[in-house]
Amino acid sequence: MSVFSHNEFDNHEQVVFCHDESTGLKAIIAIHNTNRGPALGGCRMWNYVDDQEALNDVLRLSKGMTYKSALANLDLGGGKSVIIGDPRKHKSEELLKAMGRFLERTGNQYIAAEDSGTSVPDLQVMGIETNNVAGVTERTGIDGLPCNGDPSPATAYGTFAGLKAAVQYKLDRTDLTGLKVAIQGVGNVGYRLAEHLHKAGAQLFVTDIHEEQVDKAVRELGATAVSQKEILSLDVDVLAPCALGAVLNDESIPLIKAQVIAGASNNQLAAQRHDLMLRERGILYAPDYAINAGGIIDIFYERIGHEHNKVRAHIETISDTLMEIFRRADSQDRPTGEVADELAEERFMK
Amino acid sequence: MSVFSHNEFDNHEQVVFCHDESTGLKAIIAIHNTNRGPALGGCRMWNYVDDQEALNDVLRLSKGMTYKSALANLDLGGGKSVIIGDPRKHKSEELLKAMGRFLERTGNQYIAAEDSGTSVPDLQVMGIETNNVAGVTERTGIDGLPCNGDPSPATAYGTFAGLKAAVQYKLDRTDLTGLKVAIQGVGNVGYRLAEHLHKAGAQLFVTDIHEEQVDKAVRELGATAVSQKEILSLDVDVLAPCALGAVLNDESIPLIKAQVIAGASNNQLAAQRHDLMLRERGILYAPDYAINAGGIIDIFYERIGHEHNKVRAHIETISDTLMEIFRRADSQDRPTGEVADELAEERFMK
Repeated sequence: MSVFSHNEFDNHEQVVFCHDESTGLKAIIAIHNTNRGPALGGCRMWNYVDDQEALNDVLRLSKGMTYKSALANLDLGGGKSVIIGDPRKHKSEELLKAMGRFLERTGNQYIAAEDSGTSVPDLQVMGIETNNVAGVTERTGIDGLPCNGDPSPATAYGTFAGLKAAVQYKLDRTDLTGLKVAIQGVGNVGYRLAEHLHKAGAQLFVTDIHEEQVDKAVRELGATAVSQKEILSLDVDVLAPCALGAVLNDESIPLIKAQVIAGASNNQLAAQRHDLMLRERGILYAPDYAINAGGIIDIFYERIGHEHNKVRAHIETISDTLMEIFRRADSQDRPTGEVADELAEERFMK
Repeated sequence: MSVFSHNEFDNHEQVVFCHDESTGLKAIIAIHNTNRGPALGGCRMWNYVDDQEALNDVLRLSKGMTYKSALANLDLGGGKSVIIGDPRKHKSEELLKAMGRFLERTGNQYIAAEDSGTSVPDLQVMGIETNNVAGVTERTGIDGLPCNGDPSPATAYGTFAGLKAAVQYKLDRTDLTGLKVAIQGVGNVGYRLAEHLHKAGAQLFVTDIHEEQVDKAVRELGATAVSQKEILSLDVDVLAPCALGAVLNDESIPLIKAQVIAGASNNQLAAQRHDLMLRERGILYAPDYAINAGGIIDIFYERIGHEHNKVRAHIETISDTLMEIFRRADSQDRPTGEVADELAEERFMK
């Protein structure tokens, strides 16, 4: 393994291997790009088999954060960190504090947030040693209610704004009354998206691996419960993937009847080529990392002073970015995912 | 290649891969241990074939600096950095400044100094971007004369102090009049050592690949010129290797007639086992990184306020450390190199 010639290296600025003997901490911090500002990204804890596997993961995820923050017009770069270990077995207060000390050793060029295997309280422990943690303070959420750091409401609100833009662009509708939307996953983000859509008059079809979430949506929002198998091929206007990754793939794409795909989950495309496949089928795909940027926008404002009206306004610019992507894609006959990457690069390249 | 399970990893705290696209900079910063203070070590520029080779080098050298600074009782840890590239072809002001920016990104836990392929002016260019460079300011040298950052006088002075200690311990002599010393290499450090010895009345035998240096020692210090082949096996009291590494090896050790080896060059032992081989032959070896620490002591004081009397006094403690090593080696019947490592570890372990 080489770092500089790693397949996923892609011009990373910095890759930091961190080790603390007394706590057994082994972690990698990857800083992809800081042209727009310090790199912000999750700190994942995972039982990687070796540092090769951890490196693959952190490099790929770090780069994604550069694109996401740039596309969201945030003064943030892209980075990510991974702690090698089983979060249920190897996590300790001392280990988290050791990680905090390493976050302090990046010249304030990387800021960690919660991710798989880490929680807000974990980040708060790291925060004893450093200011380079985000999403850790109680603040007023974008709905004006107290929020303990969970960015889900912001992600849901941004996804709703982006979905409206996509519907306006593709279906020429600004009134969502009667709009049929299939939501795959009504958890933290998906349920809140469903609430926004319900208020706007949309007709909802939902599925989830947790039945009680589905029942709640049926009861509270008048949604129709459908099976996990059916959800992707429903005869609806909009499909909103809000659960798993890689749901847009060779099997699902030919069956999709929705004209718009606009959902909050990460890595919706199974492979790059599915971007073009959707375009060829005439389906408007709102690139996942563009539409689900509400969370990172929310976290960003925690660092500069969180005024929920400003945060809302910034999140609403997700619509503008999507509109720009949709127009450029059509005028150049290119898939939207590819155009999103290009627009992001324009925004973070020097 | 793994970093954490690399043969030379040896509990490094941090290994940082740095890359700057616009200048082509690729560098690795290794921070072995900071228990005593920020890691100080040279920034080498070398045309490594790949980052694997660069990593091997930087890990090995970085660890050595922890031992060296600890043994010298400095409030410094150990680190090293390597820039991958041919210093004659790939060095540029912009590349050095980019390196300076990465030095700024270690949370002030690594401080670079000149090394192979870099110069004091190069470090000064890095210093435009960071304070984490050392050996770059003009100051009063340990001889009371102005000094542009070159630590050679300090290294020579420390080696002289260490040599006297070894002679006192092994030969029970404090007066050096008539002491026969063979000096291998009379360059920046070796020549200055020769001057100290000459003033103290020693009889010198010298060799060097540069004839004019030998001629000068003959002319100015009454030294006897000998061939490079002869120098190690001369019938003298002290052998002072001040040029190459690995001169104490299977071939040379059986031929050595000196009872004391006390010189300034790095890595004098070809392999670890030669430490014991010297002991078995009854030769007192002053461990190289203990006796040649004058340079790093000098550089350390640049950072905290350089008063040349204090620096001299600290350098003279090299004698005390060597005496401690010699005594422990004899009382435990162990080779001096091994004892030096143990003493260093006692000084840097938490």
